Amino acid sequence: MITRESANEARKMTAKMLGKAGVVLTPEEYPNLEITDFGLGKLINTGLQLFTYVNTPRYCAKDLVLFPRQTCAEHRHPPVDAGNPGKQETFRCRMGIVYLYVEGEPTPNPQAVPPEGDEPFYTAWHEVVLRPGEQYTISPNTRHWFQAGDEGAVVSEFSSLSLDDKDLFTDPRIVRVQSE
Amino acid sequence: MITRESANEARKMTAKMLGKAGVVLTPEEYPNLEITDFGLGKLINTGLQLFTYVNTPRYCAKDLVLFPRQTCAEHRHPPVDAGNPGKQETFRCRMGIVYLYVEGEPTPNPQAVPPEGDEPFYTAWHEVVLRPGEQYTISPNTRHWFQAGDEGAVVSEFSSLSLDDKDLFTDPRIVRVQSE
Repeated sequence: MITRESANEARKMTAKMLGKAGVVLTPEEYPNLEITDFGLGKLINTGLQLFTYVNTPRYCAKDLVLFPRQTCAEHRHPPVDAGNPGKQETFRCRMGIVYLYVEGEPTPNPQAVPPEGDEPFYTAWHEVVLRPGEQYTISPNTRHWFQAGDEGAVVSEFSSLSLDDKDLFTDPRIVRVQSE
Repeated sequence: MITRESANEARKMTAKMLGKAGVVLTPEEYPNLEITDFGLGKLINTGLQLFTYVNTPRYCAKDLVLFPRQTCAEHRHPPVDAGNPGKQETFRCRMGIVYLYVEGEPTPNPQAVPPEGDEPFYTAWHEVVLRPGEQYTISPNTRHWFQAGDEGAVVSEFSSLSLDDKDLFTDPRIVRVQSE
């Protein structure tokens, strides 16, 4: 549950970071900025701010904003039907640094630390570090989570159709995306 | 045919405009900036500069750069096969103004003028004006062309799979995308 007050504050911070990254939203678009704490009630620590430009059966594009050291909880995009093996997505860092973790060979001495108390729900440890202009494509149905560096991050996401309510989170307390 | 010299000059101008729009390319990416004059030999007048971030069967994302009043020649993205009715694309203006023309009710007093001498090859006259933060989705197999305003433009393109060599141009002299 995000209070109206903290959602408004988060929206202001998000707008500021988008502006700094050169991303222009129209005044009509700002109210559609999505703020999610995944229902965990600690937005600044575990959450995500995003704006969806377009989401069609053929493609999707969003910009994601992470506050300093904010974590997007581990999840995967499972197969949906015969024609859709799950969402495939390409993250491209625009501003700041993002530490992305995907399934695969665990990286020794990773640079992000999972949110305190939630360690069991962070199981992917292959680290990909994205700085501005760097990008990485996450295969469908692959567990992943990410955390911004000390300055926060703005990340463009190019993907196939996005069906947020199909996302499977490792943390069983997260049943669906809770957004404000 | 674009000379090496004019391609290099165009690449420099493109890099400058992308920087101004807040778009970061890595040094390794810069050489992959695509410059096309559609084979018409008048790049500054009729042409396009672009960078492709990702192009997969499931989605594609590019940034397009247009110099002041530069025109992207009229074309459409035809059906490819049973599973692909043609490329669908969403243009989102990041910087400058873009005058986009699509099939439909012709707009009286349009704000762009086709390249001199090429008027017969510009047939779509329904005008859509995109300023920063504004976007428009072009249906598959729809004739369209676009021209930047006096300051040039940077436009993000989110789309389904891009198959440039399938594009059909209204101007029969353009047989395929000629790029440098």
